[in-house]
Amino acid sequence: MTISLIELTKKLINQPSITPKDHNCQNIIACYLKSLKFNIELMNFYDTHNIWAYRNGQHKQKQQHTTTLLFLGHTDVVSPGNTQNWKYPPFSGLINNGVLYGRGASDMKGALAAMLIAAQHFIQRHPNHKKKIAFLFTSDEEGSGKNGTIKAVQQLIERNEHIEYCIVGEPSSQNKLGDVIKNGRRGSCTGKLIIQGSSGHVAYPQFLINPIHLTIPMLFDLMNIKWDQKNSIIFPKTSIQITNINTVPANCTTHNITPDQLILNFNLRFSDQSSIKSIQNNINKILSMHSLNYHIYWDPCISEPYFSNPGKLTNVVTNIITKHYHYNIIPRLETTGGISDGRFIAKTGSEVLELGALNHTIHKFNEHIKLTDLKLLSYFYFKIMEKMLL
Amino acid sequence: MTISLIELTKKLINQPSITPKDHNCQNIIACYLKSLKFNIELMNFYDTHNIWAYRNGQHKQKQQHTTTLLFLGHTDVVSPGNTQNWKYPPFSGLINNGVLYGRGASDMKGALAAMLIAAQHFIQRHPNHKKKIAFLFTSDEEGSGKNGTIKAVQQLIERNEHIEYCIVGEPSSQNKLGDVIKNGRRGSCTGKLIIQGSSGHVAYPQFLINPIHLTIPMLFDLMNIKWDQKNSIIFPKTSIQITNINTVPANCTTHNITPDQLILNFNLRFSDQSSIKSIQNNINKILSMHSLNYHIYWDPCISEPYFSNPGKLTNVVTNIITKHYHYNIIPRLETTGGISDGRFIAKTGSEVLELGALNHTIHKFNEHIKLTDLKLLSYFYFKIMEKMLL
Ligand SMILES: [Zn+2]
Ligand SMILES: [Zn+2]
Repeated sequence: MTISLIELTKKLINQPSITPKDHNCQNIIACYLKSLKFNIELMNFYDTHNIWAYRNGQHKQKQQHTTTLLFLGHTDVVSPGNTQNWKYPPFSGLINNGVLYGRGASDMKGALAAMLIAAQHFIQRHPNHKKKIAFLFTSDEEGSGKNGTIKAVQQLIERNEHIEYCIVGEPSSQNKLGDVIKNGRRGSCTGKLIIQGSSGHVAYPQFLINPIHLTIPMLFDLMNIKWDQKNSIIFPKTSIQITNINTVPANCTTHNITPDQLILNFNLRFSDQSSIKSIQNNINKILSMHSLNYHIYWDPCISEPYFSNPGKLTNVVTNIITKHYHYNIIPRLETTGGISDGRFIAKTGSEVLELGALNHTIHKFNEHIKLTDLKLLSYFYFKIMEKMLL
Repeated sequence: MTISLIELTKKLINQPSITPKDHNCQNIIACYLKSLKFNIELMNFYDTHNIWAYRNGQHKQKQQHTTTLLFLGHTDVVSPGNTQNWKYPPFSGLINNGVLYGRGASDMKGALAAMLIAAQHFIQRHPNHKKKIAFLFTSDEEGSGKNGTIKAVQQLIERNEHIEYCIVGEPSSQNKLGDVIKNGRRGSCTGKLIIQGSSGHVAYPQFLINPIHLTIPMLFDLMNIKWDQKNSIIFPKTSIQITNINTVPANCTTHNITPDQLILNFNLRFSDQSSIKSIQNNINKILSMHSLNYHIYWDPCISEPYFSNPGKLTNVVTNIITKHYHYNIIPRLETTGGISDGRFIAKTGSEVLELGALNHTIHKFNEHIKLTDLKLLSYFYFKIMEKMLL
């Protein structure tokens, strides 16, 4: 099978694999990897598709276990939103002026194609590589994720697969490809708060309970919570974002009736200096300090922080990038940003490192990737394979 | 034309005259008043119906001008909202257990019927009453009001009509019919505030501007504004109500993206110790103290406070109610509550007094009036006519 990096990226973008749909992505990938003599296994759970593929190294014949380098990724994408806001149709993969546009271009179908093409080049040049190369891609990283990487990793652990090293293709880069690599992420938790009041006519404040007025002083205190007792040496500070606020009923036309309820959603990203328990305690304390009639709901999907100690892989990746840029760019090792499936691999004791495209257009209209970045990313992956698998 | 008080109330409630619609109300009223030998004039402006009706007293033949007692009211009602929330269909006027249900029962079709029936009894008993009795009803009191009472009064002034006394049928009563009468109202103004932020992913707080977080400290300060320099001796304190808050885009499903904008609407009821200018100054000062990217829009419909000095009419009404209750209830003269078209009459120098049904169900589901209250209200109006017009 001969297909260029650009063609493969485009082919993947052409699949409208909105989470948790895979559409046809994993079939395309399976075909491709089969032609490179990979062992393929599809691990599907409910609506989620996962593909596990590996190619044993030459050591395998001689000894029981050899080192494994896993490339981790996802074939699903977030919704393109209103397609009218896109310059080009979001699943077209159109190229203009050296830039490839489409949902998933940076997060992370470009990276998947870069990994696969890198593997092809690597195997062509080193058909008898010594160590084991593997791929694990899920179709539910952007959604709940409950039947994705976590389930596949469980199965691998049950059959004693050991993954020593793992590259995650999430878009880690900020201004230049490879300027940021990540070896951990903060935890994440989400909640919903409902403040109950009692609606009434503005002219009779004595007969109404305005949930907005009750909530303001509470929110003021909430904004001033010091979440972490001390600064984490690994992670950025714990922080909260209120993601929306709405009053019910909406009262869009009449402005003389106060609402019954105020509803808000919030999300926290937390360091190892906070925990879901300390966060809930802090919020409950603030809520109890104000006389509010409230209900709070915590989303059961909580991501604990993960951190992977830098080792050989980090060293290798840093060297490759640094040399490529002639020491003008030395990658920063960070733990910022959203959650990543890297946490499930890190749990098994692997050294996990995230290296991928620039993140400034991900989850936005007109997501794109520069062709030069796409090629450079594939080159980085290729060099990592050479340094880790021979 | 013989029709009972209950039948007439029901007939008016049967008209779904949602503001500024009159449906057939003023026709019904015109027919009724014609049979009592009233002069009728329909003053319609654009979508708004107004009816002006008067019956000259016997003095008229002898001298140029006589005293006028005007009954002021409105035939429009606010929307019933979701009719599923009503025990009985909102325009049925159904009676159960001595209570008449329907939109407008208290605000203020019951009062209109009570006035009209009172006039019938009065004229039957005193066909040669000395002074002039008049009615002015509009179909736009609950809406913008711009083509309602204000326009009709302009016309009356232009032809040198003098209104010495005015009873407004707005639901002034609180616990017992007549326990509260009103001789003024606070001013009212409404505004909309838009706080502009910049949406982003919760994991990257450095790349987003959360309009909710920016707004909280400003709202905290706004809640603590002391609007009036000193207390009014006439009016309750100036107060603000935020009537709704919403963030845009709504982001109801994904809770990891912060909003672009926060939009809120607010209303102020202000005493004679504040003015639209002092209010705007206060709010602008708070806004400028916080670094916000904002737009504020003031609704051009502003109601200035009105106050009518108590005189003969107030004395008469107070005596009638006090005697009826054998001195157990003495009506309180208040200036609380929403705006009222009484302000347009007060401007002409009239003594204006509001006396109407209980207000606890107005603008709500299952609005109703007790039949005993309806009859008593009509009796009060009748006694007022006797004391003022003979
Ligand atoms: Zn991703
Ligand atoms: Zn009314």
